[in-house]
Amino acid sequence: MLKVEHIGIAVRSLADAVPLYEKLLNTNCYKQEAVQSEAVQTAFLQQGETKIELLEATAPESAIAKFIDKKGEGIHHIAFEVADIHAEMQRLAAEGFVLLNEQPKRGADNKLICFVHPKNTHGVLVEICQEITTP
Amino acid sequence: MLKVEHIGIAVRSLADAVPLYEKLLNTNCYKQEAVQSEAVQTAFLQQGETKIELLEATAPESAIAKFIDKKGEGIHHIAFEVADIHAEMQRLAAEGFVLLNEQPKRGADNKLICFVHPKNTHGVLVEICQEITTP
Repeated sequence: MLKVEHIGIAVRSLADAVPLYEKLLNTNCYKQEAVQSEAVQTAFLQQGETKIELLEATAPESAIAKFIDKKGEGIHHIAFEVADIHAEMQRLAAEGFVLLNEQPKRGADNKLICFVHPKNTHGVLVEICQEITTP
Repeated sequence: MLKVEHIGIAVRSLADAVPLYEKLLNTNCYKQEAVQSEAVQTAFLQQGETKIELLEATAPESAIAKFIDKKGEGIHHIAFEVADIHAEMQRLAAEGFVLLNEQPKRGADNKLICFVHPKNTHGVLVEICQEITTP
């Protein structure tokens, strides 16, 4: 894996969380983006080579809404950038990790993504992601 | 802040978690270190400019033991590297954040550290840290 691409943080309200994280990290949110398939609105702040991705649910069935109901606001997942998501999914499956999707799916920020089940990773929801390049 | 210096993950057993994270991240743990003041044993894996810090409690009163009792294993904190920890602590306090220590304290990996209370940060335990340089 290449780097920590982003850290996803589940929040109740981007209207509250974005200005607070701008103060905390002393940098401006540079992008907001809806991901309708996941029923989330996202907001990004950059720190070095890593993004902080704030996530607000836009529907009760969103995984972010369920996470907050169960655990409260907080860190939701860590995403690692990979060079070849198909090869990395094969490698992880061969190592015994359980993948939450069989094929890469479209995520925020122009990425193909796949999640690894947290039961295999000491409670950490891990995402792997690869930038979509257009030829 | 300069970058995500490390992500701290609370685990019950480094003996279990280190080999699993070596497989997950496809890289070797390059260092283990005890931090007696915090009653933790730490293990580090590098991903790009960021470290993954696995944390095992070495005493029941350790913050890591209490975290696992309450929430289970999982992501414990995000640490951001800063150039001047005293200046950054002043800036954060002036912005209304509650700092968990009044003076920087010694952490793992040759760092001065300070924690920000998660009640001000949407449930995320944030650490700021600065490398200790010897003249």
